[in-house]
This record gives sequence, C-alpha cells and structure tokens, in this order.
Amino acid sequence: MTLERRCYACGVTTDQPYARCDCGEPLWFAVQPLEAWPALAELTGSIWRYEDVLPVEQPAGDLAPGATPLLSVPGLREETGLELWLKDEGRNPTGSFKDRGSAVGVGVALERAHEASTPAGDPARVATVSHGNMALSTAACAAAAGLEATVFVPEDIAGERLAAIGAFEPEIVRVRGDYGRLYHDALELGARHGVTVCNSDVPSRVAGQKTLAFELLEAVPDLDAIVLPVSSGGNASAVWKGLLEMRAGGLCTDLPALYLVQATACDPIARAYRASDDVVTPIDDDADTVAYSIANADPPSGTRALAAVRDTGGAVVSVDDDAILTAQRRLASVGIRVEPSSATTLAAITALCEGGALKSGDRVAGVLTGRGYGGSGGEPETTGRTRDTLDTVFSS
Amino acid sequence: MTLERRCYACGVTTDQPYARCDCGEPLWFAVQPLEAWPALAELTGSIWRYEDVLPVEQPAGDLAPGATPLLSVPGLREETGLELWLKDEGRNPTGSFKDRGSAVGVGVALERAHEASTPAGDPARVATVSHGNMALSTAACAAAAGLEATVFVPEDIAGERLAAIGAFEPEIVRVRGDYGRLYHDALELGARHGVTVCNSDVPSRVAGQKTLAFELLEAVPDLDAIVLPVSSGGNASAVWKGLLEMRAGGLCTDLPALYLVQATACDPIARAYRASDDVVTPIDDDADTVAYSIANADPPSGTRALAAVRDTGGAVVSVDDDAILTAQRRLASVGIRVEPSSATTLAAITALCEGGALKSGDRVAGVLTGRGYGGSGGEPETTGRTRDTLDTVFSS
Repeated sequence: MTLERRCYACGVTTDQPYARCDCGEPLWFAVQPLEAWPALAELTGSIWRYEDVLPVEQPAGDLAPGATPLLSVPGLREETGLELWLKDEGRNPTGSFKDRGSAVGVGVALERAHEASTPAGDPARVATVSHGNMALSTAACAAAAGLEATVFVPEDIAGERLAAIGAFEPEIVRVRGDYGRLYHDALELGARHGVTVCNSDVPSRVAGQKTLAFELLEAVPDLDAIVLPVSSGGNASAVWKGLLEMRAGGLCTDLPALYLVQATACDPIARAYRASDDVVTPIDDDADTVAYSIANADPPSGTRALAAVRDTGGAVVSVDDDAILTAQRRLASVGIRVEPSSATTLAAITALCEGGALKSGDRVAGVLTGRGYGGSGGEPETTGRTRDTLDTVFSS
Repeated sequence: MTLERRCYACGVTTDQPYARCDCGEPLWFAVQPLEAWPALAELTGSIWRYEDVLPVEQPAGDLAPGATPLLSVPGLREETGLELWLKDEGRNPTGSFKDRGSAVGVGVALERAHEASTPAGDPARVATVSHGNMALSTAACAAAAGLEATVFVPEDIAGERLAAIGAFEPEIVRVRGDYGRLYHDALELGARHGVTVCNSDVPSRVAGQKTLAFELLEAVPDLDAIVLPVSSGGNASAVWKGLLEMRAGGLCTDLPALYLVQATACDPIARAYRASDDVVTPIDDDADTVAYSIANADPPSGTRALAAVRDTGGAVVSVDDDAILTAQRRLASVGIRVEPSSATTLAAITALCEGGALKSGDRVAGVLTGRGYGGSGGEPETTGRTRDTLDTVFSS
C-alpha cells in the first residue's frame, strides 16, 4: 500500500512524513477501496486481518489489538427501543481503542527504522505526547515490537499513571511549561531528529483506528448510526475514513450517520456543529469534567471530525457530568465497566433517543472506547448493598 | 447436553447439583467427546462457539468471554529456544480467565432459576466465595445476564477491591470468622436455600474453563506442553477435562503435558507432587507471597489437579517471589501487563527449561491468567527512565 499522505480537505498529497497540510488540516493516507472482507483464516482475530489496507504488515512482536466483541444488552435495547450494539474497546491489550492505532503507528515506525537513517548509535524510536490511554498504549505496543519509545508527559503527572506507563519501560520525558503546545512541537522535533511521532491523529494512527469501522460494518452491514466520544478528532476521522473505504470498495452504499459526543464542560466541536461553522475554534482550556480524557479544548482533527459528521448526516452532542455518571452506573449494572469518557456514548444515545434523532428500531452501534487507564480508573461510586452477618444470607 | 455430575476419581454419577462425591473429590460434568471444531460463524469469537459441549446456551445478556489472543513473543522464543505462545487471558471481560467459568456458571444458574422453585418473592441468585478475580467476574457476568449475585468477602477486604466488585451491584456479604471454611459452607447453604453457588471448582465453572484448552489446541494442534498457575485446582482440572474431551472426540491423540505452577510460599500441590503422593494435604495457612491470588493452602481440587499432571506426564513446580517479580518485569518489557500470579507461568517456563523438562524446539503454551483484579493490580516497580527537560530529547 502507498504511504502517500493526503489532505481530506484540499486534496493535496505529499510524501513528507511529518507535516500537516499547508491549509492547516491533518493528513491521512489516501482513501483506498476495501473490496472484500478478509477470509476468516485465524482463530482469533485482530486488526491485522485487514492488513491489505493497512500501511504495514503485522510486526513480529504484536499484542493483537482489535477483534473486540460487539455486545447486545437486552435491558438497554428495551429501554431505548433501538437495535443496539455496544463495541467493547476496553477488551484491547491495554484497555482502550488506542491500541489499534498504536500497533500500526509502531509498525510504521519500525519499518522506517529498518529503511533509514537514524543518527549513528541512536536506536529507532517512536514518540507520543500523552499522559493517558495513548501513552500506555504506545509504550506497550513499542515494547512488544522491540522499539524504543519516548512518552512526553506533563511535569505534574499523577504517580499512579507514571507507574502504569513506566511498567513498559519507555523513556519518559516530563515536560515543563505549555504541555498543549507540545503536540505540534513534537511533530516538528520528530521530523528534525528522525523520530516517528505517533500522536492522536497522525496518518499511521488513523490507519489503525479505521479498523474499528471495518469491524462494525462487517458484523452489522446495515447500521444506521455509530455513536462515539470525540476528543482530538483522530478516532472520529478514522471511523469516517473506514466508512469511505468500504463505500469505495462496494462493501457499503449508504454510510451510517456518525454521532460524536463531548462533555458539556469542554465541547469545541459540538459548539461549532451547533453554530453551523465549518471550522472548529479552540475554547479556553479551563474545562473540568469527569470525562477528562476527552476534554480537548483545541482538537487538532476537530474540523475533520466535523466534516465527517456533516458528510454522514450525523450530529455532535454534548452531555453533562450527571448524565455521564448515570450512564457509567447503568453500564456497570449490566456488567460493563468503562471510564467516564466512554460512558458519554450511552449518555448520548439516551439524549439522541429523547431528541428524536435516533428512532425506535434504528440499528445503532455505540463505541465504548476504554476501561479507564488500563482498567484501573474511574470506578462508579456505588459499592453494592452490603450485609454484615452470615445469618441473614439467602433469607431475605 | 446432560447435566449429570460425575466424579473423575471413582466414577460415581449424581444429579444432585450441590454435592461433592462421597469420596470427597469434586464432581464435574461427564467427559463428552468434542468431535469437530465449530464453524467460524461469527466475526469475533467467544467461549460460546463451543456451545455444543457446554451445559447451557449463551444467555441473552453475556459479556462474550474467551477467544483471547495467543501471542508469540520473539524475544522470549529466542531466550528459551521454545516454540512458545502466551495465552493472554487478561483480555477477558473483567481481566481474568475466571470469566469463562463465570459466564457458564451464571448461565446454569439462570436456567435453573427459570425451571425451579425459589421461595416466593426471592429473586434467582448466583453466589460465590471470593474477594478477588472470581468475585469481580461473577458479579459482572451475573449483572450482564440480569441475575442477582451474592458475593461473600472477608470482613477485612480492602476498600479498593470492595469498590471494584461493588460497581456491578451484587449483594456483598462481609463474613466474620473463618473465611476458608466458608467455601464448603456456601455449597451447603446454597443447596438449602436454592441458590446456585459458583465457586472455583464447581462443575459449571469447570465446564466454562475447559474452553481454554479447546482454544489452545484448535490454534496449535500439536502442543507439547501447557504451563499454568494453579490455586484451587479448578482451572487445571478444566484444562485436563478439555484435553480429555478432544481426545474422546478424536481431535487430539497425545495429550500435551500439563505443567502447574505454585508460589514456593504456598505450594501444597507441588509438595504432594514432589513426595509422589496421590492426595494433596493442606498446609498451614500462613503464606505470604506476591502471588497472593494463587496462595491456596487447602485447594479443594488439588488432588484432581495432581491427577491431571500425572495423567499427562507433566509436573508441578514452585517458584519464589524473586523469580515471579523478575518474570513480571520481563513480560512488561515486551508489552504484557500481568499480576504476579500470572507471571508465575513465565517463571516456571524458565525453570522448566533450565531443569531440562522443556527442551529446545518444544511447542509450549503458557497461560497468563489475568491482569490483576480487573487491570488495576500489581504494577511492576519500575517507572521507566525519566528525564526532566525537553532540551535533551532525541539528542542522546
């Protein structure tokens, strides 16, 4: 497959690996047709079953991300009236959807390292700017592939997170000063030093993340809608790209509507959607929400995500913290443990049903993006109904 | 499929759901032949692809356990000289192998509830005695299936664990007094009150756990050995039973050797193996090991596990805490995060290679049983190599 980067907005192509388009928008690999579902050759799947439309082959050391289950929850179907499925992305190797993109990003970095030209004595290296799921995922996938990783974290990172990331032994760089600015600086730094930077919306990560859309449509070909949280816009872009590739290959004709969700406290993409703007404008970064891992005040692929929504006839909705925590508890009550950022999906589905955008009988897939930091984060508050003596057991 | 319980040791059968055999040994469902691999009908698998040899059908509300990836780690293959695969059971819904058994246990409980006869006003209920992975798993699987769950925990359970279990809203009973004794009491209490008790080695859980062996052999038909941690002996029994069923159905001829691992600090099954005893004798319960979740001083299926080892030509090995922590760090360094109890598997593989039991070129599957309590537990100590300034990045 070609590694040509293309701007979805103005169509410019480049083989320059580190740049955004001159128009300012992020690049992705050119849309290519997905013409047939891969054969079910392996017992348990992974994203690599779509290798034909991925920019690299599966590395020898790989954690087998993807092939996550699509759950059908009878109680939620009854409540919503929808033909509803929930995609449990928490079943990925490090507990979030990020592993799909990290695996491909690491694969691309590894290939580049074999081909080129790192300064003598320097090991090949992948880098990312994150102190959450993406950091954990990139560090783990790099470790599996035998590639060095650098993770840029803010100076005040919580000890628990540092320990979890550090378990995979990346180089950890605590950054003083403006952490937000580093997203762009890192791309430039990487270009200068021959290090592959795998941030949230670089083409290689988007290529990996698009497999989410493939899995959804391969399982349910006639989906009406997909609902997923949005932060940087990278994953939303990837799902859109996956849909475009299936349409280009004749595997689907009508695209399902893409509904994106943000926390009300930090919803620049939703604001642009409501204002009928074509471009997402950064907001002041003083957001405080339980869904902190999707609180991105200046989403680098926000405008592209907005284009995805417009192209598919979806919408961007905002949900407040009360609704998010209610949804998190509801999911736990049916055995599914997610971080608050993932619970936004169910909160949005509820809101979209109430508002009439989703109608009884619609075929809808909600994406539960992760467990919360490798599974440890975001416990719901409830601690069950406890009893203190054995005597009363079974006798109520 | 018949729900007839059978004693592996003396062959007695019973339809009494709650009893152990009069000889004292645990019962399982009769061994039945697995004659063909199921068709790959579904995009992503689960244990339910083996429904034909499970005692119940998939419940409408189910978390799709199983179909976990079998990882090939180039670095570990090089170090050991083995054709080595690692089965990542941490990819199950609540992060451990327990979900296979809980799903079937809950399914059986649900079916029984539909058929019978709970006291008027009492909801159908499944119960388990655990404050670890099994509690979490049973509570989640019950919640998914819409069944009430009771979890018996010790009075001094850590708050973090209580919160994680409580998220799924089971009834939690804190037990004063002898927690160990409760394992047996619960079976009797359950029988008396019409509650299905799903402990570590009841037939329904063993039926679910045997799917681990199916997945291993379906992926690698000519395995020489399987290495897995042992605690109660329930899972080891299940793997053995899975092997017997494949042999009965003609899907394998020579059984792979079953190697079981315990922590040196609490290794009653290994002691019995070394002493050439046929029966496992309880040891004093003062064990202190990092692998606390497999520290079972009086394993209820220990003797059955020992029979499995003898029948397959395997062994039971003990590994000390230093070896366990070294193995945990080694796994993290290749991107795989496990609790110490799971790391015993790699420690044992290393020891078995050094001792000559496993030889270069042997085809070996090591089972990594879980992440550690839903993913949160047991971080390795390392926190990576941190740097504190951006200036030095990429310039070493």
